[in-house]
Parts: sequence; structure tokens; C-alpha cells
Amino acid sequence: MSAPDYSKQGYKDIIVTLDGPVLTILINRAKKRNTFDRTLLNDLLRIFDLSDKDDRVRVVIMTAEPTAPAFCSGADISGGWDGLWTPEEEKEGEHAARDIGGQLSMVIYNSRKITIAAVNGHAAGVGMTAMQLPFDIRFAWEGAKLSFSFVRRAISPEALSTYLLPRLIGLSRANSLLLGGMTVFPTSPMIRDLYHATFPTREAVYPAAKAFAEELASNTSQLGNAYTKGLIQHASDTIEETHLHESRSMKLLGSSPDGAEGAAAFRERRLPKFNATLSKDSSPWYPWWRRIDVRHHRAKL
Amino acid sequence: MSAPDYSKQGYKDIIVTLDGPVLTILINRAKKRNTFDRTLLNDLLRIFDLSDKDDRVRVVIMTAEPTAPAFCSGADISGGWDGLWTPEEEKEGEHAARDIGGQLSMVIYNSRKITIAAVNGHAAGVGMTAMQLPFDIRFAWEGAKLSFSFVRRAISPEALSTYLLPRLIGLSRANSLLLGGMTVFPTSPMIRDLYHATFPTREAVYPAAKAFAEELASNTSQLGNAYTKGLIQHASDTIEETHLHESRSMKLLGSSPDGAEGAAAFRERRLPKFNATLSKDSSPWYPWWRRIDVRHHRAKL
Amino acid sequence: MSAPDYSKQGYKDIIVTLDGPVLTILINRAKKRNTFDRTLLNDLLRIFDLSDKDDRVRVVIMTAEPTAPAFCSGADISGGWDGLWTPEEEKEGEHAARDIGGQLSMVIYNSRKITIAAVNGHAAGVGMTAMQLPFDIRFAWEGAKLSFSFVRRAISPEALSTYLLPRLIGLSRANSLLLGGMTVFPTSPMIRDLYHATFPTREAVYPAAKAFAEELASNTSQLGNAYTKGLIQHASDTIEETHLHESRSMKLLGSSPDGAEGAAAFRERRLPKFNATLSKDSSPWYPWWRRIDVRHHRAKL
Repeated sequence: MSAPDYSKQGYKDIIVTLDGPVLTILINRAKKRNTFDRTLLNDLLRIFDLSDKDDRVRVVIMTAEPTAPAFCSGADISGGWDGLWTPEEEKEGEHAARDIGGQLSMVIYNSRKITIAAVNGHAAGVGMTAMQLPFDIRFAWEGAKLSFSFVRRAISPEALSTYLLPRLIGLSRANSLLLGGMTVFPTSPMIRDLYHATFPTREAVYPAAKAFAEELASNTSQLGNAYTKGLIQHASDTIEETHLHESRSMKLLGSSPDGAEGAAAFRERRLPKFNATLSKDSSPWYPWWRRIDVRHHRAKL
Repeated sequence: MSAPDYSKQGYKDIIVTLDGPVLTILINRAKKRNTFDRTLLNDLLRIFDLSDKDDRVRVVIMTAEPTAPAFCSGADISGGWDGLWTPEEEKEGEHAARDIGGQLSMVIYNSRKITIAAVNGHAAGVGMTAMQLPFDIRFAWEGAKLSFSFVRRAISPEALSTYLLPRLIGLSRANSLLLGGMTVFPTSPMIRDLYHATFPTREAVYPAAKAFAEELASNTSQLGNAYTKGLIQHASDTIEETHLHESRSMKLLGSSPDGAEGAAAFRERRLPKFNATLSKDSSPWYPWWRRIDVRHHRAKL
Repeated sequence: MSAPDYSKQGYKDIIVTLDGPVLTILINRAKKRNTFDRTLLNDLLRIFDLSDKDDRVRVVIMTAEPTAPAFCSGADISGGWDGLWTPEEEKEGEHAARDIGGQLSMVIYNSRKITIAAVNGHAAGVGMTAMQLPFDIRFAWEGAKLSFSFVRRAISPEALSTYLLPRLIGLSRANSLLLGGMTVFPTSPMIRDLYHATFPTREAVYPAAKAFAEELASNTSQLGNAYTKGLIQHASDTIEETHLHESRSMKLLGSSPDGAEGAAAFRERRLPKFNATLSKDSSPWYPWWRRIDVRHHRAKL
């Protein structure tokens, strides 16, 4: 595909910057406390889709201004929860509704690139779920007030959080956080396993994430990373099927130019240089799983 | 349903108290070291079933006298393991046997109310499994001696522990505890993720659990909590199906009076007042999963 | 089966010692930095298969010389990744390849005996995966440099690591380690949940593992341990099916001589003496799951 100019995409609530192989998404909605609504959703759906397909991008970081009132203070419910649904969803009935946090979570989770959330401010509701859980890695400011506030608003957790949080940090902590809905800091034993690293100042979070991203982008393979994410996310229920998938991925990568370069660099005690891209070098075998269509289809007359 | 008078139910080994929306079950079997047998099982099966259906109850706490020799010292095996089976189970063969710890675990795990174990004494065997793992939240005394002692009696872990413990705290810790069978304290790195909070004295455990329960009961919705528990416990194997369930739950709750009150209280910066009850306000969609009958059915002639 | 003399099995890269009920496997390939190749694979496949069937063995420990350059420094890629595949695998195509780390992981994971990895040196790649993750318990030297280095060689994690690591320590830490590929010590918050215990010197690791193994071998039942491992590894997706398996295992063990001895020793406050063996006393019900054949079968003409 042709390389998009990210500065000219007309985003409303985000600012996107490509610096070498690292794409940064800055949430730019401080006037509304970085709340989440369909405008921000559409910006984010577009940029995660674009960056997934752009071979130049190896790592995607999402962050906020460290001066904003919050990293993301939750859904914009100035109009109640009803503001979150489309007129069609309201008309068709509850089976037709699709949670906007979940729509975003699926796109981030399905990204073939390494994704990092740089949480440099407070976070609540969807700010804890879609804006953090589907990322591969999370960095956080130690002063961030974090809460899965859903039960305290009489709603239920969304954005794949009931799937992801128990897997990420275990069911005991997930139950406490999702059913208790209390506010914790990133260093609390309750949630610290969620974060790759934490930092004492808001300003330190993004630069650390950027340095981590650059190092990873330089020394790992776009193809290898994508296959690895697939293996982790689509591990089978059985060890035997896992063995077959892992074996095939290993054979494909080991026989590829990037794999040969990885082994050579290791033997020669030098840093590797990986050139494979998803659009040119991906095997027809990948992805080996099937994506499921979750859109609502109106009944025909 | 009519509201039961819990003081007049004729329990043998428990004392039940309803204080506003919080129901407390006190194990009252200190003479037998709070061991577990069919008498205690029957008391607990009844009270968890009753409290599940009583709309007044929002949170259930189970605890013991802080002066008892133990919170629960395991199954009563004064008559060997054979005492745990019914004559019919003995006659019909091992496929007909149903572990009594597992019977209790299923009822607690399936409760639609928030459940809290206030572990204010030592615990072994079924005292670690059915009496703790199926609860949503666990509080513990830091001096409690805890052991999954099964392998040291040449039996295997029961009461859903082989399902729940790896999910609650991860397979690495679960393997150590279930296969090692050693005694640990609640603050040990081996098990501390199991506990929401720990306390230096036995006497402090129940009051802390009670305060937590009262705060939750006041500020969360009975309906929202039940749907949230359903989403966590019945999360699909795929993100897509999870998205559909979460979306539907969110739409139903967001469009409900409790949901509207949750959003209004948040906007008005006041505490919410939630009135929905499971018996009046639950959607026909809930529960969306099927319960499986595990009773043994004798072969017909 | 007849009892094998482990000193006369002609192993090339391991030294095997049976001391009472504890079998020790010493990786003996220091000249090649304890790298992993088909020679070591074949030795290990044989010994884990033999020890699984030998009723004398209750616990298996795998360790290395504490003076070796590493516990296991990864696959031997002196000939590139291609050296890892057989000529037939190369000829038949990538669907026919079977990862050698995965072959080892499956045999260790399926062992019915308690397995312990005593990690007394650095570990990378397959040294982190097949050589550690499928074991029931892991002890480690606190100075060991550990890395899941796969993505830094442009390949993907193998040896069931994408199945086991998220289950063992949670998906958040597993993502960091597998996608980050950085080097950590066993005491790092990133990985410490993987280890049952850690030790400040390399020399202390094996003796501690041995003492743990001897204590377990003395005080647990070979039959009870095997059933417990089966229940943990083959826990159902539903609580109901788990209840049926746990109940049946409990009834079989509780009614067995070892079960009776376990209850008697507990009542009499003495150490138990368990005599049951897998070859004589295992129920026809065990194993209750089906093993899946993962070998490649050449298409017939």
C-alpha cells in the first residue's frame, strides 16, 4: 500500500506522528477531560487500521498530554449512557447494540504491530479497559488514579475487559477490581502486574515508552512479532495443537531471511538488521485463525 | 418471594444474621474444630440458595468465630474418607460419587450476590477450597496457617480447586500449592494474590469485610453486580463472543433505571441510590448460559 | 516393568542418578554451553519416558553443573535454524516440521511424576521454555540471566511457551517477556511468580530442590500425585465437568489403601507411608483424557 501522510488525515481528537518505525498517537481532547465518545472512537479505529497495514510502522504508542486532566476519564456520559448508542441500535433492540469500547479493543488487540499504552494520567471506565487492556505492553505514572468504575454506575465492564483482565493478571485480582470498582495506584499489589514499568512523574512515561519502542523496533522482526502475537492470542486449548502451530511458525520464520539474519547476528555477536514486512513476506498460512464477524445484520423482510 | 426470617431456619452449624443488605454466615462448629461434613454442607447449601433469591441481600459474608481453633480445618475424617460418601454413592460405584466440597463450591460460585470469605483462622483442605476459592473476594488474618493438604493425605484437590486456583493466581503458584501441599501464610508470595486484604489480628478480619460489604452494597447495583459476575465467569473463549455478551449487558443496564441513576449520580457528583432487584428487574436474557445437571441418575431397569 | 539401571543407558549429554525415589538428570554438555540439540533431545526424551514408567521414581529433578557456562543457553544454532530440522521435515514442507523444544515439553508435561527444574545458571531461548516451563516446580539461582530471546532472533517462541507461560504467570507478564525478549533475573517482578524459590548461590539450588523432592516423595502418594496432575492439566472448561472429574478422582483415591493410610496417619498424628504405584494400582479410568497424535504422517500415493 502507499505510505499515508499521518499529518494530513484530518483526525479530530488525536495527533499522530510517525518517527522512523514508531508511530505515536496523542489523545488530544483535554477540554473534555479526554473522555471517550464516537468521535475519538472513529479517529482511533482509523489510525489502528492504517498503522496495521503500513509496513513502515513497527511499534504503536498511545499516550496523552501529560498536562491533560486525565489519560482518559471514561466515556462521555454527559447525555447518559443513551448517548453511546446509535439511533439504529436503539431502534433494533439490545441484541443489535455494539459497545464502542469493545469495537476499539478488538482493533487494538488484532493489530499485528507491537502496541504500547503510555498511561501518563488518571484513568477510569473505558480509560482502564479499551485504552489499556488490549495493548501488548503498558507503562504508567505512579500517581495515576485508576478505577474500573463500572459497577459503581450500575453498568457492567466492557471493551473485552471480562475476557482480558482475568487473563492478564489472574481472576483473583480481576474480581477485586471489576466487582469492587475501587480506585488504586499502578504500584498497588492489586494491579501492578498489569504494568511493564511505572514512573514517578507523568512526564517520564512517554519518553520511556518511546525508548523501549525504538529498541524493540530496531532489534525485532515485523514478521516474527506478528506471528508471536498470533501464537499468544490464539494458543489452542490443547498442548498438541499449540505444538503444531508453534512448529509451523518456527519453521517458516527460521527458513526466512529475517530468521537467517537473526541466527547470523547472534553467532557474530552483533545487532541484527531485519527487513521482512508483513505485506511482502507473510506466509499464506498466516493468520491461521478465522476472524468472526460481530456486526449486527438487520433481519430481511 | 417472601422474605425469610434467617434466625428461624433451624441451622445446626451456622448462625445467620441479616444486617440491612449484608448477610453474615458464622461457622459455629468450634467443638469440632470447624471441620466440614454433610451437616455443615446442608446448612451452607440452604443459606447460599436462600440468600441468592432474597432481594434484600446484596452481599454475603462467611466467617468463623475468631476464637475458634480454625476457620475450617478440613473435612471431618474421623471415620476416614468413607464417611464423606452416601450409602447410595458407595453402592452405585465411583462414577456416582459427588464430592461434598464441590457441591458447596458450585452453589457459592453460582450465587448472583457478591460473596466474601472472611478467613480469620487456620484453614486446610476443604477449608482452603470450597470455603474460600468460589467467593468473589477473600480477606484473611496474616497469622492463618493455610494448606492445600490433599496430596499429603493421598487424595486429590476437590471443590473446583483444580479449575479455580490456576485461574485465580496462575498455574505456577497453583502447582506449587496443590502439588507441594505445604503450609503458608496469607502474606507469602506463594498465595498473597488470593487475598484482597490481610490483617494482623483475627479480630480485625470480619469488621473490615463488613465495612467493605456495606460500602459496596450501598454504591453498586444488585442487577449490575449479577450481570458483571456472569460476564466474568462465563467469558467466552473468543473476543468476538465476549464483545456480544458485554455489549448486550451494557445496553440492558445502561437503559435501565439503575443505569440512568448511575450516570446521573456521577454527573451530579453525589452517591447513587440503586433500587433494581433480581426478581423484578432481571432481563429474560439473563442468565445467557446453561447450567449443567451434574446429579447422578441411577440407571433404569 | 523391570527396573532399569540408569547408569548403563548410554546417554551422551546427561548423567542420570537414582537416589531412592528421586531421579536426578544432570545436563552434561558444558563444552557446548549446555546448548540444546537433537542429541540432548533424544537423551531427555528417553529418560523422561523411562522415569515415567519406573515405579521406583516419585520425583524427577533436572539440573546442570553449577560450574557450567549456563543452565541452558538455547538451541545450538551454529548451523543456523536449519540444523534443527530433519532432512525429511525439510523435504516435506513446513507443515511437517515438529519443533524439538515442543517435543521435549510434551514429554515432561505429560510425566505422571513430580518434576522439578533446578535452574542453577543462565538460560535463554529453549533454556527458558522446554527446560523450565513444563516442569511442575522451578527453583532458581538469583544471579541467573534469563531471556525469552526468540523475537530478537526473528523467530517465535516454541516448546509450548505460548500455551504455558500465560497460564503460569498471567498474560501481562507473558506478553512483556515473550514480546520484549529482554533479560531479567529470577527475582524481577516480571518473572518471579515462575519460581517456587530462589537462592543467592548457584551451588544452593540443587540441594534445596533435592531436599524438597525427598520430603515430597516421602509424604505424598505416587497415585495421588498423578491424579492431581491430571486434574490440574486437564481441568474442564466448565465447573460442572470439573466437579465430575474431581469427585471421581477423590472417590477412587479415598477408597484406596493409600487414601486410608493418609486419613489414618492424619488422625494418629504421624507421617504416612504410601505404597501404591502407577503400574499396579492405577484405575482403568485414569487417564480420562485422550492424547492426540501430533506426528507428521506422509501422504500415501
